[in-house]
Amino acid sequence: MEELNVIGQKAKKAAGQLAHLNTEQKNRILSMVADLLEKNAGGILEANVLDLRQGEKMGLKGAIMDRLTLTRERISGIAEGMREIVQLDDPIGEIEEMKKRPNGLLIGKKRVPLGVVGVIYESRPNVTADVAALCIKTGNVCVLRGGKEAIYSNNIIVSIFHEAIKACELDPNMVQLVQDTSRDSAVAMMKLNKYLDILIPRGGAGLIQSVVQNSTVPVIETGVGNCHIYVDEAADLEKAVAIVFNAKTHRPGVCNAAESLLVHESVAAKVLPQIGKELSEAGVEIRGDDTTCSLIPEAVPANDEDWSTEYLDMIISSKVVASLEEALEHISEHGSMHSESIVTENYSHAQYFLDRVDAAAVYVNASTRFTDGFEFGYGAEIGISTQKLHARGPMGLKELTTNKYVIYGSGQIRK
Amino acid sequence: MEELNVIGQKAKKAAGQLAHLNTEQKNRILSMVADLLEKNAGGILEANVLDLRQGEKMGLKGAIMDRLTLTRERISGIAEGMREIVQLDDPIGEIEEMKKRPNGLLIGKKRVPLGVVGVIYESRPNVTADVAALCIKTGNVCVLRGGKEAIYSNNIIVSIFHEAIKACELDPNMVQLVQDTSRDSAVAMMKLNKYLDILIPRGGAGLIQSVVQNSTVPVIETGVGNCHIYVDEAADLEKAVAIVFNAKTHRPGVCNAAESLLVHESVAAKVLPQIGKELSEAGVEIRGDDTTCSLIPEAVPANDEDWSTEYLDMIISSKVVASLEEALEHISEHGSMHSESIVTENYSHAQYFLDRVDAAAVYVNASTRFTDGFEFGYGAEIGISTQKLHARGPMGLKELTTNKYVIYGSGQIRK
Repeated sequence: MEELNVIGQKAKKAAGQLAHLNTEQKNRILSMVADLLEKNAGGILEANVLDLRQGEKMGLKGAIMDRLTLTRERISGIAEGMREIVQLDDPIGEIEEMKKRPNGLLIGKKRVPLGVVGVIYESRPNVTADVAALCIKTGNVCVLRGGKEAIYSNNIIVSIFHEAIKACELDPNMVQLVQDTSRDSAVAMMKLNKYLDILIPRGGAGLIQSVVQNSTVPVIETGVGNCHIYVDEAADLEKAVAIVFNAKTHRPGVCNAAESLLVHESVAAKVLPQIGKELSEAGVEIRGDDTTCSLIPEAVPANDEDWSTEYLDMIISSKVVASLEEALEHISEHGSMHSESIVTENYSHAQYFLDRVDAAAVYVNASTRFTDGFEFGYGAEIGISTQKLHARGPMGLKELTTNKYVIYGSGQIRK
Repeated sequence: MEELNVIGQKAKKAAGQLAHLNTEQKNRILSMVADLLEKNAGGILEANVLDLRQGEKMGLKGAIMDRLTLTRERISGIAEGMREIVQLDDPIGEIEEMKKRPNGLLIGKKRVPLGVVGVIYESRPNVTADVAALCIKTGNVCVLRGGKEAIYSNNIIVSIFHEAIKACELDPNMVQLVQDTSRDSAVAMMKLNKYLDILIPRGGAGLIQSVVQNSTVPVIETGVGNCHIYVDEAADLEKAVAIVFNAKTHRPGVCNAAESLLVHESVAAKVLPQIGKELSEAGVEIRGDDTTCSLIPEAVPANDEDWSTEYLDMIISSKVVASLEEALEHISEHGSMHSESIVTENYSHAQYFLDRVDAAAVYVNASTRFTDGFEFGYGAEIGISTQKLHARGPMGLKELTTNKYVIYGSGQIRK
């Protein structure tokens, strides 16, 4: 595709410059963008209204329309986030594990940018600003391919980046937005090995699977979270009720929300009625196995599909299990390797669960909602990886870098 | 493909067991395999003869036949390598960056196996033993798909692993060899996302590109090395001659051998005649630009293709450049991001070269031949990554692992 080839060439060229800016230069761009976003909030909101009107015509529903909507407050939030990124340590240039080999060679691992980062995403215009800021801070050029529904908002946000970058007398092509929002441009990005070093899909399960299946560019799989809370026989039931309630209802539309509840049979009769009551009162639909349904009057029967479903909604599946082992098997079969939590006061059960569950984040006695770059102390995140290569769990600045070996010799040849 | 689905299922099952063996258990298997390899050297050599005979019938040439050949000495070398892997630290289980968050959550990164590692490779039967040993040490199940030409040797090596694993009363499916050596089985492995966590191609450029282009399983690209030596205007010419000679002739058939020589014009007349003389006497063909040909009587004219060719042979391309900048541009255009070296006594030139060259390993005053797991002090390697994701440069034990976050809470919920 012509547009993407041109973007790719420009990106490669800009990468050579951006990789060698110092921290001060990169922070200067980000501070200017933060100020300009707030200064131009009026213009951004006008552009956003165009997207919202078009979204209505396209028949977009509640949650998507909400994600698409910008307000003066949300714009300030984006600008604040950018100022926080300015405060974070710049990982680029650091040399780790420097060591002297017996032959006198000094070998170190230097942290460097990945190069050109492609991101395919949907609806949320704040992703445009967040990704571009994280990429600039880490010396990476970004190629952004947002959704059709957000094109006006995305364009004005990118134009603000360009204004700041030009004011710093640098190459604006370090941030580029793909204008073609058809399926073709997404497919073309997946084959753009010549220019992209990495491709990150951010959005629903359909988008992510399509990228994983079709991309020849290395992909980082993000996001799908079918997260479980397992209430062990040795659980503190008060903690259990609070954790289940929080993990399900605090923000049901995100990937680290709980989608499934597993309860040991020896405590089911004691704890399920109360969990059922609190969740139902909050408007959560409970889809349970037979035992759950017998203990929670509001529950409806679950079918096989429920155990593997990421609802992203006020729905939870619930199953009573005979043992910790059965809970682990259920998680291994139905989980998406995102976040899993056990509620227990038993030391061995806690250690065994931490050891055996294969997921990006495994918890004892805490809500799965903490799987998040900010909560983990990284200050920002570009996504939550559910794959095992390169990055796993919340991806902060460091995950947008790679290394090269730098070797200081004095004439060494191999014997 | 039926065979691979069955292998995949068995691999997944074995992975659950292998991931939780302790270091002693894993080392015990490897020590037994090392002993059994030496004890059964006679049988291995007999199997190898069958491969060699078939190789002759297939019309295989010198270098491939050499890589295919086992000797008593080579078998001892493989066993020794395995004993060295036993001595290496086990990376699995280590928890890094454990920290306490303001809300009391204790968060750490625990090093865990990747799971199931697929490797597609050609001719060399020692790869079978090396890969299986590295995978066992790191708790990974391996699915090995070697070449048709080595099937007898590979099968007997794998049967020795099985003997040792069974003697330890563990699941022999932690090491499996694909019996179908047709193109179909390679293609099926590239789509085996359900069972494979990672796929590593080891072999020629054709194999590697085919895997990169067709695999939906995450790939680590290895090996292609179009490595340059740049002799700077401020070079110590004696070091330059020795380094070029070593990088080209020490072992020309491997990826870290130099394939191309760049010389600054101000020292070309002084250094090229001597380099030319030494290389020619060693039997190296020199393909040069006009200036090179005018300074080295034995040189033949290079064509455009030469600059991008990995010869893996006693051939080197040579070009005279007007500046460090021109050398960097040439490397950026024609290099394969493997290993690049500058010979210089000028501090600023050295730092600038280290900074600007985008490659897995960048050297000052040393031969590119050092890019190697053993030489870097990792004790072993599963390949040399030329991509930027997950691993770059020589891949040791640590590169066969991933992490999971383990979080110790006391009832925390998100506010």
